[in-house]
Amino acid sequence: MKTKKLFLLCAAVCIGMVGRAQNQFEPAWSNLPGCEYPQITSDGQVRVQLKAPDAKKVQVCGGEGFSKEPVDLIKDEEGNWTATLSNVTPGFHYYWFMVDGIQVNDPFSAAYFGYSHPVSGLYAATPNEDFLECKDVPHGMVREHWYFSQVTGKWRRAYVYTPAGYDANTSERYPILYLLHGAGENERGWSLQGRMNFILDNLIAEKKAQPMVVVMDNGYAVARNEKGNPGFTSKTAQKRAEILMDVYKQDIIPTMESFYRIKSGRENRAIAGLSMGGFQTLFMGLNNIDMFSYIGAFSAALVGGVMDNPRTAFNNAFANPDEFNQKIKVFWFGAGSGEKAFHDMALDSKKKLEDIGIKTIFYESPNTYHEWHTWSRCLYEFAPLLFK
Amino acid sequence: MKTKKLFLLCAAVCIGMVGRAQNQFEPAWSNLPGCEYPQITSDGQVRVQLKAPDAKKVQVCGGEGFSKEPVDLIKDEEGNWTATLSNVTPGFHYYWFMVDGIQVNDPFSAAYFGYSHPVSGLYAATPNEDFLECKDVPHGMVREHWYFSQVTGKWRRAYVYTPAGYDANTSERYPILYLLHGAGENERGWSLQGRMNFILDNLIAEKKAQPMVVVMDNGYAVARNEKGNPGFTSKTAQKRAEILMDVYKQDIIPTMESFYRIKSGRENRAIAGLSMGGFQTLFMGLNNIDMFSYIGAFSAALVGGVMDNPRTAFNNAFANPDEFNQKIKVFWFGAGSGEKAFHDMALDSKKKLEDIGIKTIFYESPNTYHEWHTWSRCLYEFAPLLFK
Repeated sequence: MKTKKLFLLCAAVCIGMVGRAQNQFEPAWSNLPGCEYPQITSDGQVRVQLKAPDAKKVQVCGGEGFSKEPVDLIKDEEGNWTATLSNVTPGFHYYWFMVDGIQVNDPFSAAYFGYSHPVSGLYAATPNEDFLECKDVPHGMVREHWYFSQVTGKWRRAYVYTPAGYDANTSERYPILYLLHGAGENERGWSLQGRMNFILDNLIAEKKAQPMVVVMDNGYAVARNEKGNPGFTSKTAQKRAEILMDVYKQDIIPTMESFYRIKSGRENRAIAGLSMGGFQTLFMGLNNIDMFSYIGAFSAALVGGVMDNPRTAFNNAFANPDEFNQKIKVFWFGAGSGEKAFHDMALDSKKKLEDIGIKTIFYESPNTYHEWHTWSRCLYEFAPLLFK
Repeated sequence: MKTKKLFLLCAAVCIGMVGRAQNQFEPAWSNLPGCEYPQITSDGQVRVQLKAPDAKKVQVCGGEGFSKEPVDLIKDEEGNWTATLSNVTPGFHYYWFMVDGIQVNDPFSAAYFGYSHPVSGLYAATPNEDFLECKDVPHGMVREHWYFSQVTGKWRRAYVYTPAGYDANTSERYPILYLLHGAGENERGWSLQGRMNFILDNLIAEKKAQPMVVVMDNGYAVARNEKGNPGFTSKTAQKRAEILMDVYKQDIIPTMESFYRIKSGRENRAIAGLSMGGFQTLFMGLNNIDMFSYIGAFSAALVGGVMDNPRTAFNNAFANPDEFNQKIKVFWFGAGSGEKAFHDMALDSKKKLEDIGIKTIFYESPNTYHEWHTWSRCLYEFAPLLFK
């Protein structure tokens, strides 16, 4: 009897511990060194704090999976404002405070380039997902590669991932993936916010993906002879993608494929991108099916009616479905379950393409929005399909 | 007569144009894409602007060469607050707004990791100095190098500069410089704020410096068995430098010198750092004169009375001046003319060391403070002396 009671007591304590552990607030691992806030739980809660003794109103805002509406913070006697958010979706979120009408970044988190400006970012818990963690596996590197662009007449900076072993295996050549960011972000996004290097390190270590070089360049370009700004809208998307395609064909691809030890041929070349970069990927990939064998559109911004008529879309890329299916080994769409517009654009395109005999793959990222965790997962699903 | 009048008119116009050109406000090149502010002139003026219609008081603050005191901004009818600063010293400055008592970063500039948090940064004009510009010369790369530290029990990230030609010349080996950042900054500081890659690209292209590999690691480390925080103060400086030295000797140096193609031997190894990193450089370099041949202390924080008695300082490193002078080929101090405490610490150390027969070099950066342009210039002066 005593034993049974003790067992029940232990069981109760253990269940209690599990319960507490799930709701235990811990500093997010993405916090700056020594910072106690933001705090996260494993079940999707986030607690933020900001010291602002003289402020009258403080709110916190962020990406859709962080909070759909601004959330009010409550002030304590020491002038610290605090709020606890629930149902925050997994992975990376941009977020920021509004203090009496002024946007203020969180001094406790790193700032990432998003929405065209430095914005605070944090990683919410990713239960049962460790694919973007820095694990005890061989690590590749991300390099800052400066090169001169003939098209723009300016120096540009690419970030280039070389897989583990690249430096030691000096006679080995690798396939190459061009990986594009979204509007308002830059060439740093994929490795910082998206943790693409850890995703590929892990996939390659588990032999789920081929070792590959990945080039992440800037998605904005203004040609030498152009005036005006490179902004991406429904109206400008096509023109901007044309200029960017010039940069890829004349500058980026020749520079990268001569500098790095890259396997030749279209079967060793892939392109993928997110949102604006998804549009650019489709534009560049489908206008050049002799150059690429793999195309991945992550939450692609299918703007300007580009897929209204798939038979004529992208300069008749789909005119000969058999040839297309034979050339493009993987034609891949992905989107988050929560980002209705992008999700539906992708599904609608897939259906239209299927109707004319084009093979595609569609992936839905569960419980994510138009945010980086959707795209990190897309890369994790897409990369294993390449160069097989 | 008419001709003479026309000539005088032209001359006047030209002088006027030159006058205007000097005071012409242009968007700083460090601005984020498309941002019109901050604006700078070639004669050290900076104009900043922030939209804050509901704010009651807005000030701008920054590093000492940016402004010694907070400067009030003036609001226009559209809610834009503006201020013009004069006598801003050349090169990089951290700066930030205070909006009704809250620190706010400038949405128009990139955020850099300084003061332990993301802070806005801009480059003021550098008249007659182009050593840190991205020129039409062969460029090296900066790589993110992740490795596991046995001392800390954690993964760490170093930034590693490999010079132009490193990837192509696969049989060539290079000397190595360990380059340390200051307190409140991190391993990104030297390549972002300090533009060390462009400085070395330019020096190497002009054959003023030897091609070298440069390792920039994080200056903070907590050993596996330690509790507490890694903060740098007068009292903790020595203890923290000891732990960091363990990381260098057990992790960083073996990792980097086996991964990269590095020439063996102490004559091919240099160490330099700024402020906190200057102290760490002296501590690690002088405790290991059998490992390093070149030591550079940029605005070094000579805290804790470490140089009170040079005969016994740094575990009797200077006990045998002849041996020291023979082993340490360059023992270099640098500081900005405006940073009195650091400048005087360096000069005082130099004098004390000279008194006991230790050879040193002292460089004064004109018209700069305890800010990055001092250290960019220090690197520009120090690097040509290495590995000769």
